[in-house]
Amino acid sequence: MEASTALSRIGLAGLAVMGQNLALNVAEKGFPISVYNRTTSKVDETLDRAHREGELPLTGHYSPRDFVLSIQRPRSIIILVKAGSPVDQTIAALSEHMAPGDSIIDGGNEWYLNTERRIEEVSHKGLLYLGMGVSGGEEGARNGPSLMPGGSFEAYNNVKDILQKVAAQVEDGPCVTYIGEGGSGNFVKMVHNGIEYGDMQLISEAYDVLKHVGGLSNSELAEIFAEWNRGELESFLIEITADIFKVKDELSNEGELVDKILDKTGMKGTGKWTVQQAAELSVAAPTIAASLDCRYLSGLKEEREKASEVLREAGLKDGVLNVGINVDKKRLIDDVRQALYASKICSYAQGMNLLRSKSNEKGWNLNFGELARIWKGGCIIRAVFLDRIKKAYQRNPNLASLVVDPEFAKEMVQRQAAWRRVVGDGYFSRD
Amino acid sequence: MEASTALSRIGLAGLAVMGQNLALNVAEKGFPISVYNRTTSKVDETLDRAHREGELPLTGHYSPRDFVLSIQRPRSIIILVKAGSPVDQTIAALSEHMAPGDSIIDGGNEWYLNTERRIEEVSHKGLLYLGMGVSGGEEGARNGPSLMPGGSFEAYNNVKDILQKVAAQVEDGPCVTYIGEGGSGNFVKMVHNGIEYGDMQLISEAYDVLKHVGGLSNSELAEIFAEWNRGELESFLIEITADIFKVKDELSNEGELVDKILDKTGMKGTGKWTVQQAAELSVAAPTIAASLDCRYLSGLKEEREKASEVLREAGLKDGVLNVGINVDKKRLIDDVRQALYASKICSYAQGMNLLRSKSNEKGWNLNFGELARIWKGGCIIRAVFLDRIKKAYQRNPNLASLVVDPEFAKEMVQRQAAWRRVVGDGYFSRD
Repeated sequence: MEASTALSRIGLAGLAVMGQNLALNVAEKGFPISVYNRTTSKVDETLDRAHREGELPLTGHYSPRDFVLSIQRPRSIIILVKAGSPVDQTIAALSEHMAPGDSIIDGGNEWYLNTERRIEEVSHKGLLYLGMGVSGGEEGARNGPSLMPGGSFEAYNNVKDILQKVAAQVEDGPCVTYIGEGGSGNFVKMVHNGIEYGDMQLISEAYDVLKHVGGLSNSELAEIFAEWNRGELESFLIEITADIFKVKDELSNEGELVDKILDKTGMKGTGKWTVQQAAELSVAAPTIAASLDCRYLSGLKEEREKASEVLREAGLKDGVLNVGINVDKKRLIDDVRQALYASKICSYAQGMNLLRSKSNEKGWNLNFGELARIWKGGCIIRAVFLDRIKKAYQRNPNLASLVVDPEFAKEMVQRQAAWRRVVGDGYFSRD
Repeated sequence: MEASTALSRIGLAGLAVMGQNLALNVAEKGFPISVYNRTTSKVDETLDRAHREGELPLTGHYSPRDFVLSIQRPRSIIILVKAGSPVDQTIAALSEHMAPGDSIIDGGNEWYLNTERRIEEVSHKGLLYLGMGVSGGEEGARNGPSLMPGGSFEAYNNVKDILQKVAAQVEDGPCVTYIGEGGSGNFVKMVHNGIEYGDMQLISEAYDVLKHVGGLSNSELAEIFAEWNRGELESFLIEITADIFKVKDELSNEGELVDKILDKTGMKGTGKWTVQQAAELSVAAPTIAASLDCRYLSGLKEEREKASEVLREAGLKDGVLNVGINVDKKRLIDDVRQALYASKICSYAQGMNLLRSKSNEKGWNLNFGELARIWKGGCIIRAVFLDRIKKAYQRNPNLASLVVDPEFAKEMVQRQAAWRRVVGDGYFSRD
């Protein structure tokens, strides 16, 4: 009896920051949790945090066996390690001590076919498996992520109460739902990341037009994005964009940090996979693809600098000379807002089309309204806008595309003129 | 002695039209050829054509064994069957009767990794292997294709004299060169096809602007494309575009055929692979990707018609109402020509960047000037423009991108204003 009461409700293996934070989140919601990491210092770190962050019910273990046996049956074990072979190694180490009916829940950004392979592999031991997308980064993991579990429905049911408490909470429920069979949870998370890339690229381009055509200062930009965040564009990414313009450069004590950041970025695999899957499924996803392309080009900082020299020598005038001249600022700002919103509709339509096509191929029977709902909180793309998408799919679950939903269609048509002005005037018409 | 003189110099298996035509081309160049097909009627058909097209030195065979044994050693056998498992089946059937030092040459649009697998597999029998891109369609195969053989250099040398005669001939040599090791021949052909998709899309968009902004008639279009074909845009695709506008609709006896063609197309796998490889290699290939996207959308004819209804109901005005009104036709035509040329530079730069990235990854040591040269004749993308690309890479074989070649850079800068006008005025600025 004593031993039994001491058992944890759930386990988590892999204690990098994401894993630590998710474990502390689970514990904070009142579910005793066992944690394990191969490098034992991470276990101590997590124990220390559990102590400091409110005496949370978390126990640390230093061997796979002790860890597994410390969890009540049927066991549910979340693993949060690097996608690919580390997941296979962790499954091998843990499953040795697990029993039929126990579940493994991979919370990493895994390629969906790896999850489907593992579902099959562990089934030979009678184990259940979930591939669960976890969105919201480190902060989301700690305070409420958006969760996209796919695979064994029974495994989902075993932890449903935990996931519903751990997930971000919005007015229409916790940001988690059972996605579907197989690797659907990973696939949905992958497309979610592709959409996130699109959102960030669209915001960057809006910034670019406002700065390099409109000649807006950082404080003006901060004000505009803050204003936008009170309207139809209200979202986490618009909010933090408004904030970033206000951050001073503390090193030089001169100007804002945003102007000192090296314009060179990298990327994770999920965006690439999204573009490749779009090609595989013959679905046009140009916004997502363009956002990837811009990351590649961003990464080629040295090549871009050289190209800029060659083009200057070839006679190209510096496009930044006419900044703010002969521009109706007020109108430009309003046009860019409308263009950004209309482009966002197109980008989400692409992501949803991709999911629809895959769902049909795999028989996943994805519920697009539910996907939009669970993205309303916790994750990076959380936005008021997602509620409109949810409602569009509630109106018609078989919608061929978001752009043919009557409400979105009307919004696109209303923004058409402004949108064309931005693209025409902002980028192409200036010599 | 008698038996020996009767042996063919080379063999070809797979007698669909491409295979028949390539075999007849080989025979016509004076190389006795053996042909084989599993469906024997195709063998008779080919024999009949060899007879009718000039008593060409071609012998037909009805079993793999007879076919293989009819070829002089070391044997070289071209196979032209559907990519994928038919190639494996054909290799299995033929290799049984082949001897060490003999070569198999796959002329299909094969995925390059399949070729690399087969190079390894047949090497266990001492056989050599080439994956050879063949471009130019059925007509090219008969009269002179562009050939992209990659794999065993020895296998290439065994048939070099044949390939050099069979290939299209341009002023600086036959349109064939040894591409590199492994699957490089297939990979180069794949990217070539991606570039071809880009060319076709760019021409379609130029047509679209001229027709729907400029209001040009088919006879005006025919004239303009014919004129363009006498300048920097001179190419096979511009030539046939000029011709197509003149083709009358023979069924209705009213108007031109071009206006009666269903705007719905499909695609082959090579374009898709190109886009997926671009993502894999982190190379931006937006023109090629957009040309694919437009094919997907083209294929969704029914969805597009429904969307058009929804958007009309949502208040979208018909964009075709203002055709030709307030347009300076002469300037538009000249602008579109310049935009098309500048876009073409970008598209080829993307394709070449993709090849460069893969060449670095695989150590293929591709010679980009040579690739441009062998595309100058035989294939669908043949164009005067390719000679400029050849020269750019001769000036600098390590060119980071075509767009930073000083000459191309100058051409892009000179066309910048016109290009911006077309994109701004043509598509985006019109409400």
